[in-house]
Amino acid sequence: MSGRVAVIGAGPAGMQAAISASDLGAEVAVVEKRSEIGGTPISAKYAALTPDLQDAEEAFRPMMKSFEGDGNIELLSGSEVVGFDGEPGGFTLTVKGPDGETEVEAGAVVLATGFDHFDPRNANQVYGYYEFDDVITIKDAEEMFRDGAFVKPSTGEEPRSVAFIQCVGSRDRQIGNTWCSKVCCGIASKQAIEIKEQIPDASVTVFYIDLRTYGFLEDQVYWRAQEKHGVRFVRGRSTEITRKGDRLVVKGEDINMGRPYEVPVDVAVLSVGMEPSRGTRELAELMDLPLEEHGWVATSGPLDTVTTGRDGVFVAGAATGPKDLEDSVSTAGLAAAKAVSMARKFD
Amino acid sequence: MSGRVAVIGAGPAGMQAAISASDLGAEVAVVEKRSEIGGTPISAKYAALTPDLQDAEEAFRPMMKSFEGDGNIELLSGSEVVGFDGEPGGFTLTVKGPDGETEVEAGAVVLATGFDHFDPRNANQVYGYYEFDDVITIKDAEEMFRDGAFVKPSTGEEPRSVAFIQCVGSRDRQIGNTWCSKVCCGIASKQAIEIKEQIPDASVTVFYIDLRTYGFLEDQVYWRAQEKHGVRFVRGRSTEITRKGDRLVVKGEDINMGRPYEVPVDVAVLSVGMEPSRGTRELAELMDLPLEEHGWVATSGPLDTVTTGRDGVFVAGAATGPKDLEDSVSTAGLAAAKAVSMARKFD
Repeated sequence: MSGRVAVIGAGPAGMQAAISASDLGAEVAVVEKRSEIGGTPISAKYAALTPDLQDAEEAFRPMMKSFEGDGNIELLSGSEVVGFDGEPGGFTLTVKGPDGETEVEAGAVVLATGFDHFDPRNANQVYGYYEFDDVITIKDAEEMFRDGAFVKPSTGEEPRSVAFIQCVGSRDRQIGNTWCSKVCCGIASKQAIEIKEQIPDASVTVFYIDLRTYGFLEDQVYWRAQEKHGVRFVRGRSTEITRKGDRLVVKGEDINMGRPYEVPVDVAVLSVGMEPSRGTRELAELMDLPLEEHGWVATSGPLDTVTTGRDGVFVAGAATGPKDLEDSVSTAGLAAAKAVSMARKFD
Repeated sequence: MSGRVAVIGAGPAGMQAAISASDLGAEVAVVEKRSEIGGTPISAKYAALTPDLQDAEEAFRPMMKSFEGDGNIELLSGSEVVGFDGEPGGFTLTVKGPDGETEVEAGAVVLATGFDHFDPRNANQVYGYYEFDDVITIKDAEEMFRDGAFVKPSTGEEPRSVAFIQCVGSRDRQIGNTWCSKVCCGIASKQAIEIKEQIPDASVTVFYIDLRTYGFLEDQVYWRAQEKHGVRFVRGRSTEITRKGDRLVVKGEDINMGRPYEVPVDVAVLSVGMEPSRGTRELAELMDLPLEEHGWVATSGPLDTVTTGRDGVFVAGAATGPKDLEDSVSTAGLAAAKAVSMARKFD
């Protein structure tokens, strides 16, 4: 009734995998490179979750408490996996932590090393993220909301106009990111609502190619943003952001009108997409996990979202491609179930 | 190391939940109203899966074999749950089957009763599904592919032109289906590819509002359909289908061009969306499960995709809203993990 499972990463997917495995009676060792648990939502200071604007820290608190208070879960934080060897039933992870190297034994492993936000430096378009203070990302916007107010960074004042630029680092063949990052349309719509709640008479425009608010996001964030808060959605490809005086100018082409636009705004928010995290890429190499064609960890296809190309190693969350929070916790449950079953076979 | 779990529904989510629970050492009773397992993909005769066109029966065979060959899984097919009572650790399901009524005891329950395809009869637009033989649904198209060839139903010949009409029964306030059904853009793009593979010089057009091929669907089906197969994608709201001679005429408004279109085609395929299945609605009522605002089974939010409002009852797959196959198997894993943990607490 035991079985020992190692989980790499303590973000939403890693925490959920560890909790599920422990609930099933397994002993779990979790290796996390950061000093804190919570992964990207916590480290990137997410303010409120999509779609219901629930406070992110509050939403994650029960999961984090449950993780931290679990006597079957051993957390090795500030630690990285630097060696990996073995077979199902007998894997050895060499872990380098604050106190030197140690070895972790496990019958099965769950990789939950997630994604990195796309760095606008690598965009093909000229968005000036590193030149203009008032060009920010959806990640920066979360931090502002968390800190209490959405402001124009260069002045600290409330902006009168804000533009969201969708698909930055996504759906872009020229930079090699041919995937859609799945969550950015929902997040931008949610942030547009938050800005309008704070500054009701601000002009907020989302420039998008296709608005991908699948499922209930359709009315819960997209319609709500338009109808309740007067957010404008313009189908357009934004190609350049320049500065004019103390404002920015977003340039692009309005696809519906078939004509170019030049829209002066106070703040431009880049909806940066997802890329495999450095940890995901490094561990896939170290653990000899096959990648799929876009460079994320390969799985067995639509009917098995968590089995990797290496027997005994499962994967949860955004290490396999763009994932929303629902995807992350769901795949974590399946990965935990499979890892515990596998580890027990050898007990 | 046991714990008894009941699963209601033997589609992809139900099969995966049962297999995961059994792999974890639980005894599982599965109640399925159909005489066959496999759920909608099998009963609706899906031909090939999105995105890689893998034969659906072949793709499901390992899962179905694993389910059928599992000594810990007891299948009650042709059976419906007609009574439900009890508490976590001690639920009793009254099951009406071919041989009369029986009682199933379980410590925890997984509901996996899925969705129904939207019935075009209820569409607000005039699409003539029940009037014109050559107006079909994506479900009918799957059956044609499964039977060997995509044809114009009224003649049995290969069509020269095909139109897909997106968002039939989705994103539509007037009929009360305000959600996006999530999978239809990917399925239509996949079917468009299959038609072009069969009839390379056919004209195939997808009329859409936003093309929601999230994640890897972006290049794996959307770009591929356009670039490799010459499928046309037109951003337009189709409002009516009429007949002219032996052809159909699709009428609507081209959103990009800002002008109406009237396109003669041989076959029109309605991308019908998802609604909570009859079984989902009936069982939610019988089991006293709270619904979310759109009428699907409510869960605890983005950080817990499977816990219902009734203690000890978990939910997997499309009973909670539009889900793709990945979502269905992933939520099944989490639901199984939670159900087994819960059932064991009382053993």
